[in-house]
Amino acid sequence: MPLTPIPYTHVAFSDSFWTERIRINRESTLPTIYKQLKQTGRLAAWEGWKKGDPNPPHVFWDSDTAKWMEGAAYSLAQHKDKKLERTLDGMIEQLATLQTKDGYLNSHFTQVEPKKRWTNLRDQHELYCAGHLMEAAVAYFESTGKRSFLDIMCRYADYIDACFGPEKGKLRGYCGHEEIELALVRLYRATNEPRYLKLAQYFVEERGRGKISWGAHPKSKQRYANYFDLEAQARGDDPAAFWAKSYEYLQAHKPVREQDQVVGHAVRAVYLYSGMADLDLLGANNGDPFLPTLEKLWSHVTARRMYVTGGIGPSASNEGFTTDYDLPDETAYAETCAGIGLIYWAHRMLQLTSDGRYADVLERALYNNVLAGVSADGKLFNYVNPLASRGVHHRKTFFSCACCPPNIVRLLASVGNYFYSTSNDGVWVHMYAQSDVHIDSYGLQIQQRSGYPWDGAVALALRLEQASEFVLHLRIPEWCESSLVRINGGDVELGAAQMIDGYLHIRRHWQDGDVVTLNLDMSVQLMNANPAVPQTLGRVAVQRGPLVYCVEQIDNDANLDQLLISREAEFTETTADNGTLRLHTSALRASGAGWDEQLYRSAEPKYKRTEIVAVPYCDWDNRGQGEMRVWLRALPMT
Amino acid sequence: MPLTPIPYTHVAFSDSFWTERIRINRESTLPTIYKQLKQTGRLAAWEGWKKGDPNPPHVFWDSDTAKWMEGAAYSLAQHKDKKLERTLDGMIEQLATLQTKDGYLNSHFTQVEPKKRWTNLRDQHELYCAGHLMEAAVAYFESTGKRSFLDIMCRYADYIDACFGPEKGKLRGYCGHEEIELALVRLYRATNEPRYLKLAQYFVEERGRGKISWGAHPKSKQRYANYFDLEAQARGDDPAAFWAKSYEYLQAHKPVREQDQVVGHAVRAVYLYSGMADLDLLGANNGDPFLPTLEKLWSHVTARRMYVTGGIGPSASNEGFTTDYDLPDETAYAETCAGIGLIYWAHRMLQLTSDGRYADVLERALYNNVLAGVSADGKLFNYVNPLASRGVHHRKTFFSCACCPPNIVRLLASVGNYFYSTSNDGVWVHMYAQSDVHIDSYGLQIQQRSGYPWDGAVALALRLEQASEFVLHLRIPEWCESSLVRINGGDVELGAAQMIDGYLHIRRHWQDGDVVTLNLDMSVQLMNANPAVPQTLGRVAVQRGPLVYCVEQIDNDANLDQLLISREAEFTETTADNGTLRLHTSALRASGAGWDEQLYRSAEPKYKRTEIVAVPYCDWDNRGQGEMRVWLRALPMT
Repeated sequence: MPLTPIPYTHVAFSDSFWTERIRINRESTLPTIYKQLKQTGRLAAWEGWKKGDPNPPHVFWDSDTAKWMEGAAYSLAQHKDKKLERTLDGMIEQLATLQTKDGYLNSHFTQVEPKKRWTNLRDQHELYCAGHLMEAAVAYFESTGKRSFLDIMCRYADYIDACFGPEKGKLRGYCGHEEIELALVRLYRATNEPRYLKLAQYFVEERGRGKISWGAHPKSKQRYANYFDLEAQARGDDPAAFWAKSYEYLQAHKPVREQDQVVGHAVRAVYLYSGMADLDLLGANNGDPFLPTLEKLWSHVTARRMYVTGGIGPSASNEGFTTDYDLPDETAYAETCAGIGLIYWAHRMLQLTSDGRYADVLERALYNNVLAGVSADGKLFNYVNPLASRGVHHRKTFFSCACCPPNIVRLLASVGNYFYSTSNDGVWVHMYAQSDVHIDSYGLQIQQRSGYPWDGAVALALRLEQASEFVLHLRIPEWCESSLVRINGGDVELGAAQMIDGYLHIRRHWQDGDVVTLNLDMSVQLMNANPAVPQTLGRVAVQRGPLVYCVEQIDNDANLDQLLISREAEFTETTADNGTLRLHTSALRASGAGWDEQLYRSAEPKYKRTEIVAVPYCDWDNRGQGEMRVWLRALPMT
Repeated sequence: MPLTPIPYTHVAFSDSFWTERIRINRESTLPTIYKQLKQTGRLAAWEGWKKGDPNPPHVFWDSDTAKWMEGAAYSLAQHKDKKLERTLDGMIEQLATLQTKDGYLNSHFTQVEPKKRWTNLRDQHELYCAGHLMEAAVAYFESTGKRSFLDIMCRYADYIDACFGPEKGKLRGYCGHEEIELALVRLYRATNEPRYLKLAQYFVEERGRGKISWGAHPKSKQRYANYFDLEAQARGDDPAAFWAKSYEYLQAHKPVREQDQVVGHAVRAVYLYSGMADLDLLGANNGDPFLPTLEKLWSHVTARRMYVTGGIGPSASNEGFTTDYDLPDETAYAETCAGIGLIYWAHRMLQLTSDGRYADVLERALYNNVLAGVSADGKLFNYVNPLASRGVHHRKTFFSCACCPPNIVRLLASVGNYFYSTSNDGVWVHMYAQSDVHIDSYGLQIQQRSGYPWDGAVALALRLEQASEFVLHLRIPEWCESSLVRINGGDVELGAAQMIDGYLHIRRHWQDGDVVTLNLDMSVQLMNANPAVPQTLGRVAVQRGPLVYCVEQIDNDANLDQLLISREAEFTETTADNGTLRLHTSALRASGAGWDEQLYRSAEPKYKRTEIVAVPYCDWDNRGQGEMRVWLRALPMT
């Protein structure tokens, strides 16, 4: 049953958790990143750069600026800001001056390497930048109704469409960094221009086709050569000299429909899968849905290659995937952008299938991996999100490769997108947070009252223009081991509610003022990883509701692996000044007393009892730099 | 009480452990490395290289070749081999052709960069190569009585002496990679030329002096500038651009007498300390012994920065030391050469102090870290010696930086050096192995009969030319928790034996035919690391006698961290075909049964009972590549 998401513009948060984060995103993160875009020369890159000037525009700068603009556009839709809008209009005017007559637009290639356009799709992020500019243009159009940016990007999309495709005379290529696929779908949705959808479909279907002339790659049935090989040869490069050593790095090692393992660069992978899901949602798949492939890929990543925080891609060397069950904690890459991309993909899979397992992962990645990507004051950012730190890791103001900070901006500015959907038979509540949502197609407003994510009690008051029968679908999260639903204070009638794929379906003739209460058990859980994961054996992660917890040095002293917790530990809860719920329990700590300057001995270290404090992982590194650890050593009960 | 080591030439092994290793070293490793020296161009480098030829001699190639020659010389002393001797003579002739009239000798700088002599002592290994050539020359002279190589190196030493020193007109420098200090002491011992000893002393005393103009370094009391700064400036380089970012890397961050922490590149450090101990042994210290400094450095490394295998230097980034208690297992560098250097240093400290703690570490490094450096067939080598492997690590045939393989050759060919010493009051037995030793100064032969290292029972039969009173000093290893000594089957008389610093001193009027038996308890021990080591908390290392054990995939399946052993585990022993003793015990293994494709869950994994097999760490990776682990998860008894 395909779903239609309720856009963020229809969702008004009134909780402390999201309301505050959205405010900080708008008031602190947006201006902080704008300052960085300016300081690093990214804005100047649109104002004209000439040979000999210092600081030439880098190949992916346009994408950083575009993501910030997209986030700013979402913000404007919820919170008018004339100054910000003028800033954006000015940037759009500057951008327009860079567009060449044929429609091409890229601050690096028009100014720095004008002769190298389309000569290295594998490495140079050209179409990736185009995609992010398209997303920003659509967001700005939808937010302000102004067409200027959209028109610029339609001209560019028209030019790209004239350059790429299977037709004779066109380049049969696609981008090394996926993004344009999902962006073209957005542009199609905004413009109804079918060529954009067709082009997105071409980029997806063409990917990884053609025979690769080097490396240990499966033989393709295609007669023609792989595009990246041809392109490298045309540049005079040896295709086999590709630094990543395999086209797995960019998911072009075989045609996408033949891919059944998530491999390579994590952000690229999930952006591709998001685009594939988009095509299925629009039926743009030649009658051969991508869903079976996407389901295989989803099962693979979530069953073998995902951190308990929802982070993906453990390795810095390829910013991506390694081998099954390889999930080191201290060296985890788990890039913020990859978590965001996983949310995009999960959201699309959820609309495609109405299966709660996608919402479960979306919630896990959002509340943990992704929220850890930004500091409480909105001014510092994580590119990588390790699950343990010896005290070296700390958020930074910006990065030379600055994909993550503006990606956080656009996600948080539109986070309302992920909470509600509609279907032919009713309304879907995917996540819980105190908020009011307007669902026009059902003449419905839901007033959700909840202390989520700190409290599992949720009340949904339905305000209806007129009473009507439909199904209310309430997600029961996978982490919730017991739940109770009541309608207007009474039990739900037998047969009126049904659990399907993680959602409670309640069919009813709803009246204005009906109140559904849901109680989700939010007891602390000690999570274990599959014993095939070598790095977490004998360890547990503390989880409460959607939040994974960690211990930090500031609360628990250094050398956190000296701690040993019981699997029957009882936790007490306190609420910190910033509203976050902290967990307290008694643990053991290995003591160095009596060891003096001895390094090895046969007698076991003594343990002494100690009190420990755990805080939400998303909130770590907000009280000074220090050690942190998610996976704690636990006494086996065996 | 200073000791004098009995040289390897006086020790004849008749055990299976060392006899076999020495044979393989001679029959397999020596020719294997010779072939590599040839194939890689290292031999051709001495036969004349001209501008435009491929494969120019590298700056440290001379040292690789020299170490192989040194090992070959030791081998010749025990096992005549005319062909090998002719090979060496031919190499020495070639080497002679490279020596310039002034005495300078370096295959790289004479042929590739003739104008760059002495312009970059910091990085270019010039004096380091000289040192290794000197050691080889001394070994060849002592082994064969032939002076040719020695004469070449004396001429070079004379030239170096003319170039370096505090006197006006000389360069006030020293080598970035220590080695020449201990080599000059050897050359002095072989030639009695006091200038060589004085030069060694200069190189040591000068090191780290002078004000460093960059970085966070302590202010030196010296008025003049640090040599490496001046040298870099003379090249037109910015001293602060030194890649290692600190002269700690090469132990030149402050004068050696002010150093109290082992820092930087591990091999360099222990070669320096060996040279310092040599100077103390010869009283060449201006009346101010290096010993207090060396004792501080020794305590620091052995109490905070040494693996249970005796490996040192955890980090690949500097091939050296990091911070106190940082001892990661899977990524341990623990270079074979650093272990060998630690043996050199320990051996000198032992002679200087007669304190068994130096022999304890010598034995630990030798039997574990260093022996793991070569495969059972003598043909494959470890540069790094991790304490855990996910199956990626495997010994290699050679390395572009090939310091370790020939270092193993020379160590094993002269391993008899480390077993016995004499002092004014008697004879010292440092290590145990079935062997006959001739101790001329006491008119004594000791026939040691033992199954060591597999069996702790040792019988020492004393063959004396004439009965005499002296002290027999028997080391009681630190790992031994109970020992029993008998003389001619009877108890040792009260007062006749005394334990001092790890040695049992038995003063007696010894008769020809006296037999001392020593029983060292060799029960399996589960070793714990100091709880300040983050990487080994909750883990134990299996040790039996001097040998650290490990588990390997071939015996115990993959994912070795699924294993959980009891601290009260009882071990049984079997002897493998190759003579090594294997340990067997019952353990628990976390089971993936029932997890299917689940990655996280709140229920603890089930454990099932399993039998495990441990093999000596020095013997790992000899039966195919696979996982390995020294530190095993252990159930706390707390």
